[in-house]
Amino acid sequence: MSRPCPPGFLPRFEAFSAIGSTGDGGVDRVEASEANGAARRQLVAWIRELGFHARIDGIGNIFGLLELAGSDAPWILTGSHIDSQPLGGRFDGAYGVIGALEAAAAVREQLASSGQPAAANLAIVAWTGEEGARFKTFLGSRAYTGVHSIADALAGADVRGITAGAALGAIGFRGTDQPAPRPAAYVELHVECGSQLESQGLRLGLFNRWWGAHKLDVEFLGETAHTGPTPMAKRRDALYAAAQVVTGIRHLADAAPAGDLHTSVGKLVVTPNSPNVVPSSAIANVELRSVKPDVLAASRDHLMELVAFAAATARVEFRFVRDDLRLPGAFNASLRALARQEAQALGFEPADVDTLPGHDAITLAEICPSLMLTVPSRDGLCHHPDEWTAPEDLELGVGWLKAVLARLVVEGLTG
Amino acid sequence: MSRPCPPGFLPRFEAFSAIGSTGDGGVDRVEASEANGAARRQLVAWIRELGFHARIDGIGNIFGLLELAGSDAPWILTGSHIDSQPLGGRFDGAYGVIGALEAAAAVREQLASSGQPAAANLAIVAWTGEEGARFKTFLGSRAYTGVHSIADALAGADVRGITAGAALGAIGFRGTDQPAPRPAAYVELHVECGSQLESQGLRLGLFNRWWGAHKLDVEFLGETAHTGPTPMAKRRDALYAAAQVVTGIRHLADAAPAGDLHTSVGKLVVTPNSPNVVPSSAIANVELRSVKPDVLAASRDHLMELVAFAAATARVEFRFVRDDLRLPGAFNASLRALARQEAQALGFEPADVDTLPGHDAITLAEICPSLMLTVPSRDGLCHHPDEWTAPEDLELGVGWLKAVLARLVVEGLTG
Repeated sequence: MSRPCPPGFLPRFEAFSAIGSTGDGGVDRVEASEANGAARRQLVAWIRELGFHARIDGIGNIFGLLELAGSDAPWILTGSHIDSQPLGGRFDGAYGVIGALEAAAAVREQLASSGQPAAANLAIVAWTGEEGARFKTFLGSRAYTGVHSIADALAGADVRGITAGAALGAIGFRGTDQPAPRPAAYVELHVECGSQLESQGLRLGLFNRWWGAHKLDVEFLGETAHTGPTPMAKRRDALYAAAQVVTGIRHLADAAPAGDLHTSVGKLVVTPNSPNVVPSSAIANVELRSVKPDVLAASRDHLMELVAFAAATARVEFRFVRDDLRLPGAFNASLRALARQEAQALGFEPADVDTLPGHDAITLAEICPSLMLTVPSRDGLCHHPDEWTAPEDLELGVGWLKAVLARLVVEGLTG
Repeated sequence: MSRPCPPGFLPRFEAFSAIGSTGDGGVDRVEASEANGAARRQLVAWIRELGFHARIDGIGNIFGLLELAGSDAPWILTGSHIDSQPLGGRFDGAYGVIGALEAAAAVREQLASSGQPAAANLAIVAWTGEEGARFKTFLGSRAYTGVHSIADALAGADVRGITAGAALGAIGFRGTDQPAPRPAAYVELHVECGSQLESQGLRLGLFNRWWGAHKLDVEFLGETAHTGPTPMAKRRDALYAAAQVVTGIRHLADAAPAGDLHTSVGKLVVTPNSPNVVPSSAIANVELRSVKPDVLAASRDHLMELVAFAAATARVEFRFVRDDLRLPGAFNASLRALARQEAQALGFEPADVDTLPGHDAITLAEICPSLMLTVPSRDGLCHHPDEWTAPEDLELGVGWLKAVLARLVVEGLTG
């Protein structure tokens, strides 16, 4: 089932990208799918082959442990995720996991060949269900950091009513109750999923701030009726209300200065969704994103007005079935300074860039110093089969990660 | 599996309504579902128990034949459908089938007790897949009349890719190649699914005209992208375009004089329909309905402008994947006059009403004189568990159908 681990980062990354390949450069490795299970088994096999100790925690997060400094020493944790969107690219997430495997092994070689003592242990991680394509976003990292309990995370169900626990169990990754080590610092390598580096012609980036995101699922509740005879004035059309929200929040973003506010409805679930029947329910997954807390708060107020207006004109009820706010924030300044030095040592001045998408590193920032390193995404594309980063940039990023991890392992967190 | 046929129309209709009951007065008997199969088996058992000859044609239409006037005599056909919407009412369709069974048996009794000779044979029918909730609308009657071939009808697939042929085969109703008799006239009894009778306080209605319906499925084709970082101006959001169509056609109907134009999007399929991903495809099932050909044509022109504008603002492509026009029309005048006489003989002046939903009788009108008899729907409700017609109205309608059929069978089509 699993292939032997190819030597070197690029061949290994290519081999990994074949798992769940959609044949057009992209992958479909939605959490707990068959392809996701295959990717997980491959990763565990390579973790063991490279001499790491594999551990699966209760929510299916996969760890690869390198005890370099003894069981009482602090742990430096690095990784990302290997789940994808249904029609996703192959770099988003997987780059940071396969890159972590390469960089961590290289740190171990450096210590062995130089005889340097280690002040910290090193672990890699692949977080469960970052994308939220099937279950809640950041499912694994949020269970690890305690935003929600492992039991709650396992009990969450997909649209067909299958729980994360059952789905992970079906692919053999329900995991164990053996806890993973707690980190003294977290470092995540990730493609930019934006075009700030490309537009500046730079090859390395340090995520400075992260955008806030307010994610709200609003359900409109109308009434089924025959679309033929029912007078327009008597209809209670849930889709008509939801469509007003889709267009209205788009207009809100279009009216803001460029880059101030991003909005979207990526998912809309209509019931019964049958020709000839006025929809009785429509659930819109609304996202509001900004790096400015006041812009984010104002957009939320406008959304409330829009939802109330849409419901009134469609003669339907509404309720919010999810209200999930991630405030804007910034990554750890000391770690960023250390990473800047290591980039300069490689001959590159890294750009300070914002990250607009969420990342597990933002979740981790709640429990330890957290850092993100990034390399360019062509045309800023992400969540698309054409998502692409040049091989030389991929390798440069892995080398940078290795240098940063080596500093942290040798110096601990005092450097 | 099947119950014996209860005596009398109302107990029989109640027993039939239990099949696929949703527990709230409604039924879920979507074509070729398990419940639909159970309803079909029950109907065939009752057809045989009442002494009709059962025949299933190649698209699963169920016939019950009473050869009253010899194999060379013309056939009078009466019936409706027993499939339903996913959350449908129990009267829509089933009333006209169980009513036909009752009325046809009563005609036979009248002939036997009076000794009148028959000039025509009599057949009841339950058409396959009228509702279009799973396959194309009017699947069975359109195959019977030749709008599409039986082979094409069987090859049509549902959203999961299961063909009508496979689905009907799975419930044992793929049928035979034995053709059903061709009709000299068709009569359908159906609840009004409108409130014209109720608003006039009348109990019997003759459908005069049918509304035209232009049903167009438009697909918008954009591009997936991450909803976080992708600049608003770079998005190609298929759902944004589709939402403009949902709201735009609603505004078009709201701007027309009441009752001139009905519009809807009952079904909207979004791909990949995942949070965090800009939708790459959205298919909207658009319906435009009017009894006025010029209003219908104008609304179609406005839809074209709306679709082009929506696609331009969302920076997406579009294509029509279905364009299905049913022109407005009128039922047979001679049959209507005959039915009016029979209503008057029962002591009721029937109202002339329009039918806004489509019916199999409209399809049949293309190959023979076609007639529809109707009784009131409370609040005009249809395609809803609260759909309701008073028992005394149900019985009155069945009696009227029996009287009309008796005239046609005794007099042939010369009366």
